[in-house]
Order: sequence, then structure tokens, then C-alpha cells
Amino acid sequence: MTQFDMPRRLAAEALGTGLLVCTVVGSGIMADKLSDDVAVSLLGNTIPTGAILVVLIMIFGPISGAHFNPAVSLGFAFKRDLPWSAFGPYVIAQIIGGILGTFVAHLMFDLSVLQASTTVRTGGAQWFAEWVAAFGLMGIILGGIRFRADAVPWLVGLYITAAYWFTASTSFANPAVAIARAFTDTFSGIRPVDLPGFIIAECIGAVCAVVLFGWLLAPGDDKR
Amino acid sequence: MTQFDMPRRLAAEALGTGLLVCTVVGSGIMADKLSDDVAVSLLGNTIPTGAILVVLIMIFGPISGAHFNPAVSLGFAFKRDLPWSAFGPYVIAQIIGGILGTFVAHLMFDLSVLQASTTVRTGGAQWFAEWVAAFGLMGIILGGIRFRADAVPWLVGLYITAAYWFTASTSFANPAVAIARAFTDTFSGIRPVDLPGFIIAECIGAVCAVVLFGWLLAPGDDKR
Amino acid sequence: MTQFDMPRRLAAEALGTGLLVCTVVGSGIMADKLSDDVAVSLLGNTIPTGAILVVLIMIFGPISGAHFNPAVSLGFAFKRDLPWSAFGPYVIAQIIGGILGTFVAHLMFDLSVLQASTTVRTGGAQWFAEWVAAFGLMGIILGGIRFRADAVPWLVGLYITAAYWFTASTSFANPAVAIARAFTDTFSGIRPVDLPGFIIAECIGAVCAVVLFGWLLAPGDDKR
Amino acid sequence: MTQFDMPRRLAAEALGTGLLVCTVVGSGIMADKLSDDVAVSLLGNTIPTGAILVVLIMIFGPISGAHFNPAVSLGFAFKRDLPWSAFGPYVIAQIIGGILGTFVAHLMFDLSVLQASTTVRTGGAQWFAEWVAAFGLMGIILGGIRFRADAVPWLVGLYITAAYWFTASTSFANPAVAIARAFTDTFSGIRPVDLPGFIIAECIGAVCAVVLFGWLLAPGDDKR
Repeated sequence: MTQFDMPRRLAAEALGTGLLVCTVVGSGIMADKLSDDVAVSLLGNTIPTGAILVVLIMIFGPISGAHFNPAVSLGFAFKRDLPWSAFGPYVIAQIIGGILGTFVAHLMFDLSVLQASTTVRTGGAQWFAEWVAAFGLMGIILGGIRFRADAVPWLVGLYITAAYWFTASTSFANPAVAIARAFTDTFSGIRPVDLPGFIIAECIGAVCAVVLFGWLLAPGDDKR
Repeated sequence: MTQFDMPRRLAAEALGTGLLVCTVVGSGIMADKLSDDVAVSLLGNTIPTGAILVVLIMIFGPISGAHFNPAVSLGFAFKRDLPWSAFGPYVIAQIIGGILGTFVAHLMFDLSVLQASTTVRTGGAQWFAEWVAAFGLMGIILGGIRFRADAVPWLVGLYITAAYWFTASTSFANPAVAIARAFTDTFSGIRPVDLPGFIIAECIGAVCAVVLFGWLLAPGDDKR
Repeated sequence: MTQFDMPRRLAAEALGTGLLVCTVVGSGIMADKLSDDVAVSLLGNTIPTGAILVVLIMIFGPISGAHFNPAVSLGFAFKRDLPWSAFGPYVIAQIIGGILGTFVAHLMFDLSVLQASTTVRTGGAQWFAEWVAAFGLMGIILGGIRFRADAVPWLVGLYITAAYWFTASTSFANPAVAIARAFTDTFSGIRPVDLPGFIIAECIGAVCAVVLFGWLLAPGDDKR
Repeated sequence: MTQFDMPRRLAAEALGTGLLVCTVVGSGIMADKLSDDVAVSLLGNTIPTGAILVVLIMIFGPISGAHFNPAVSLGFAFKRDLPWSAFGPYVIAQIIGGILGTFVAHLMFDLSVLQASTTVRTGGAQWFAEWVAAFGLMGIILGGIRFRADAVPWLVGLYITAAYWFTASTSFANPAVAIARAFTDTFSGIRPVDLPGFIIAECIGAVCAVVLFGWLLAPGDDKR
């Protein structure tokens, strides 16, 4: 783990999740405003998000682990790599940081700070996509830690870059980010009423990855 | 080689090929749906594919070698780096994983699971392009292993990013992925009847690279 | 610090800032000329800027620290990592280099060398965006130096790639670059009269980051 | 230098230059065919070129130095890092490989193999842009070798990604590639009659960089 104390770890989780959400929401507003081609807008949303993830995980990872994500924290708690006593505070810091990130994005773009999304994101296919997105995210984190710990920031940034496009839901894969995105009625929003389906699918996906990759990565020594 | 047992190696090949195909097919569906500009759609197909390749090779490479590709496995078998006894199981795992990847993409986008492509991809120029694509892929893998083994995931991801655009066929370069893409009638599909031409060209390309790079990389010691 | 003498350090700051501005202004002209879709133009402005930052910081970092930015130099002076006696010369070299970079871009694109921008960039939301941009930039530099010094060029390049999109102001985050961009009436320009608001916000943002990250990064030893 | 013999070094120069040109020309054809937005086409030309440069320099660098470029070979000869006796053979291998790369691209896209470009690229602004492009390219190679030799492939790939956009000429920066591009009447072509201006500007730019960076990088020891 880390030698940083809990206030600093929670500050890192809140600040990191806040900057992540600020990037997702802010770049979504910018990209949507500048283009009529939704794929171009999604590129303008994807590239910044992937880039900032590499940055945030590299600088906050040594402090808090750089989860920024309750589903990932749940996976680590399930694996006993995060004490259950820290799980609650981590999740609260992530959610508060994320919501503040949405507010900061709104302030920068001169929009009303308080909004509620009206974008419908629901149904079995979307929930399955979120399960896949979170399963893959947790799996690549575990594989990365096992074989190439220094590359984990790159792995997560690249994975989310891909998952924005290959999952039908644009890969929220993160309950704290999903909650924060319910507070914006812009490109990246999600209706508050659609949150539970997303959050449940994401948590199940992460735990499934812990189980499967626990088997896959367990045996023997690699020779690197 | 690896110290992982055969079930885990085959699981890694199947899961990796599945996630790769899921990304190729899924991002193709997403990109095609969102844009009328085919070059924008191809960017939305290329960037996720290159990104996920870096990720998948980094986390599955230490388990199975992360071939995800019968032509690459053939090249390694030809070079005696993969026992011929493992070649058959590898290819079967890759093909099954790939097809399941197509199915998962269809489920996420709420499309019929079972489809057959109607996209024509045939003729001498296309086959030559696939020969070039697979020759280059196998060559850069061999060069990477020789000089910068830790960078191979990056090399493959970047090579495929380029090859999507510089080969007229968008660089399938992979028989298992080609078979899986015959099962989708979307952006990235290929008619089942066009598979043999692609697969033969790809296998010949990989073997040619083993021969040429066997000469090119053989001599002396490098000073790194 | 560095063992290079002051003339070489100032040459590195001037040349680096010049190439950075040349890229920002030149790619803005090129992108704006080639597309009617402003988001596509912004991609054509963002990707070159992020890429050149990685390059410039990697090759000039060991000479001068590769600030290229008076707000960053201010932050380091505030932290006592740059002697106050070097602060003035650094800033002058950055400003002169930046303005020459604009001139070079104009010459390459066969435009009048001397121009003044007419692009309005003002108001509280823009200033807040610049505060956020510079706060984040200084913060990730400090975090990077603390935990992964060799990755700082990548962190800055990726951060600016993201910040072009998530800040409403497209993240100038740099007083010398802002001044140089006042000298071009093209895509990336800013009215001279709007400079003070940007420069003040950027300097405050950088100093705030020094204070907050001073606390956040201070304690204990990390285990990497 | 390298311990590889001259036939292998020349094969590496020819094969590398060929794959580079094949990517430049091929991705130009693909991108131009798929989009009406020239900036989108240029993105589809830029991203593959930057990506393949990283790959080619990483795998051929240890064999031949991976110049792929007579102006760069001239710079190294000028610096006495390449024997003048090897300069001629290097340049011939680069030119032959480059022209074959154009032919391969034409074959893959089912176009006439033999073509001559009709695209006008001339005048003082274009020549100045090529001088800048080659000056920067040689400079970042020298800086990279001095401080971060393992990162040179990344530096060159990222630099060219930027230079495609910030130089008005889209940064040929390479006499062998320029000659090869005179053989294609597609997106990336250049009229044969315009070659001398480009080639002279590129060679002068590279030599100027050797002189300036010889001074800039000379002194002291860095502490990395």
C-alpha cells in the first residue's frame, strides 16, 4: 500500500475523481458545441479522457492507489488489498470529488452550476455493456499490477480510450463518475433515474473480474 | 516461454482475442452509427483497436505470449518458438474467443447475435494488402522481441494503427479475427466466401517475415 | 538542477518556447484552413501541441528544466527550486522565443509577419478556466517530479491534450504563449487587451498548486 | 555504432524507408478517398505516419541507426558519426526503398504502379517550412541521443506528428521520401520539378541543426 496518511489519500481520491469528471464533462461540452458530427464529438471526448487518466493515475497512484472509482475500490476490498474500513471513506471522497468536478466544468463554460441530466441510458444492452466495461477495466488493472505495475496508468488510459467506442454505453464503468454525470444536462449526462442499473452492473463486473483474474493470474512465476 | 499451464494460456488467448474482436466490431458499429464521414468512422475504429492491443498484449503476453492470431502462432511454430503440439489448441482458442467477441459486441449494441457479413473484400490487390499487413506485423514482432521486448505491446498497437490506413484492406492481418468478422454484417465485416483469400495471404505473409527477418536479425550482438 | 551554463539554459528556454508557439499557431492556421468543422480543427491543433510538448520537454528538460512558461517558472521560484535571480532572464527568454515562434509560423504560411489578434477571450468564466488550467499544469508537474521524473514530458503533453478540451479557454495556461498568441490574428489568437486577465489567472493558479501540492506530496516515503 | 554488417544495414535502411513511404502514400490515398474534409484526411495521414515511425526506428535502429533519410545521414556524416564511405550507399538504399514503397502502395490500392505527381509545392514559404522541419527533426534526434537514447523512436514519431500540421509544407523533411512521393499522383505527391527546392532546404536545415545543437548540447554533465 502507501505510506501517505488518510487525509491525503482521501484528498487524492477526491481531487483525482474531480479532475477526471471535469475532463469528461468539460470536453463533452466543448466537443458537442464545436461539431455537428457526433463521432467527431466523441473523439473530442475520448482523447482528453484517456490522456487525463494516464496523468492522474501516475501522480495520485503512489498516494491513494488512484482508484477514483467505487467499483474498483470494491474490487480491491473484495481482494483484501483495500481494508474494508477504508472502503466507505474512499467512496464518499470519490463521489464528492466527482460532483464538484461537474460543478467546476459548468463554471468554466458559464453554465448553470446545478443541473440534472435528461439523457436516457437504460435497458439490458446498456447494462450488459457496463458490465463488460467494468469487467475489462478491473481485469486490466489486476493484470497490469501483476506484470507491469509501472504501466498501469497507460493501461487504464488506453483501455478507456477503447471502451468509449466498443461498449454501446460509452463505458462509464465508474459509479462515482456516473453519479457526477447525472448532475449535467450536457453531452456526457445520464438521467438520475438510470443510475441504479449502471451502478449495479459496474459493481458486478468488477467483482467478476476479481474472481476470473484471480484464477488466471494466480499460478507460477513469470520470467520477466 | 511462460510458466503458466495450458488451460490458463488457452484462456488468455481466447479472452484476449475475444476482447480484441469485441473492440474491432463494437467500435466499428459505434463509429459507423455516429458519422457520415467514413474517414471519421475509420478513426473511431482505428484508435480503439490500437489502444486495446497495447493493453491486451501487456497483460496477456506473460501468460500465453498474446498471439491472438493464428498467422502469428504459425510464424512462431515455424521458428520453433511455439511447439507444434500447442499450435492447434492455440488456433482453436483464438477462433472460439474471436467469434464470442463478435457475439458480445452484438449483444451490447442490441443487434441480432447471429449475422453473416455481406461486405465484399476480394481480389488480388486486397490479398496483396493482407500479405503486406501480415508480413509487417510478424516482422515488427520479431524485431521487437530481438531488441526491445518490453516495447512489443506498443509496437503492435502502433503498427496496426498505421496499417488500418496504409493497407487497402484495413489490415485484418489475422485469420481468427477475419473469421470472427465474417459473423457480423456491420462496418468491420467480411463475406464468409472471401475468407480463404485473406487467410492464405496472411499465413504466407507471416512465414515470409520469419524467413527474411531470420536473416536480417541474426548476426552479431547489438550494444544496447 | 542542471550543469548547463546560463546562456545555454536561456537558449533552450527561448528555442523551446519558440517551437511550442510555432506549433500552436502553425497547426491552428493549417487546421482552420483545411476544415469547416471547428472540432476537427481543434483536434488538428491539439494533437500536434501535445506531441511537441513531449518532445521539447524531453530534450530541453536536462538543459534548462524546460519550463517554457513564466507561470511555471514562478511556481518553481516560489518553491525555491529556481533562484529568483534566474526568474527574470527565464521569463524574458520565454517571451522573446514565443514571439519569434509566431513570426516563424507566419513566414511558413506566407502571412504578414506582424499581426495583432482580434479574438475576444475575456470574462470570469474564461479567467476561471485559465486558473484551473494552470493549477492543473503546475500540480501535475510537481506530482510527476515527485514520483516519476522520467515521465514528466509525457504528463505535460497528455495534460495539455486534455486541457485544450476540458477548459473553456482551450488552456493557454502560459503567459509567454499567451503574449505570443496576441501577435497572430489566426485560429489560436487572443486580443492583446485580454492578456492581463489570462496572465493573472495563470500565475495565481500555478502558485495555488504549489501550496496545495506542497501539502499533498509532502509526507512520508512512497514505496516505489 | 552497430555490429551489423553493411548488407543488413542497407537492407534495414531500404526496408524501413520503404515501409515509411508505403505508410505515407497509402494512408494518404485511403484518407483522401474516404473524406471530403481535408483536415480529417490529414489526420488519417498524420496518425499512421507518426505511429509507424516509432515502430520502424525501434526495430531498425539497432541495425542501421534507422535514418531512412538522406538529410539525417548527411547530418551524422557531418558530425562524423557516420563514415562518409557509408553515406553514399545509405542514400542509395533509402531512395530505392522509398520508391519501391510508393509502388507497393499503388499495388495495394489497385492503381497504376508508375505515376508522376502533379501537386505543386514550391516557393519561398514552402522552402522555409522544409528548412524548419528538417532543422527541428535533426535537432530533436541529436537532443534525444544525448539525453534519452531509448526514447528517440518516440521523439521522432511525435515530432513528425506535430510537424505535419505546424509546417505549411506538411513536413516532408526527408529527400528520399520526397523523391518517392514524386512518383505518386495522389494526396501526398509532389511535382518532380519541385524536388530540388525541397531537398536543398532539407539538407541545409539538417546541417544547421548539427551546428546549433553541437553548441547547445556540448557542455557539462547532466545528472540523470
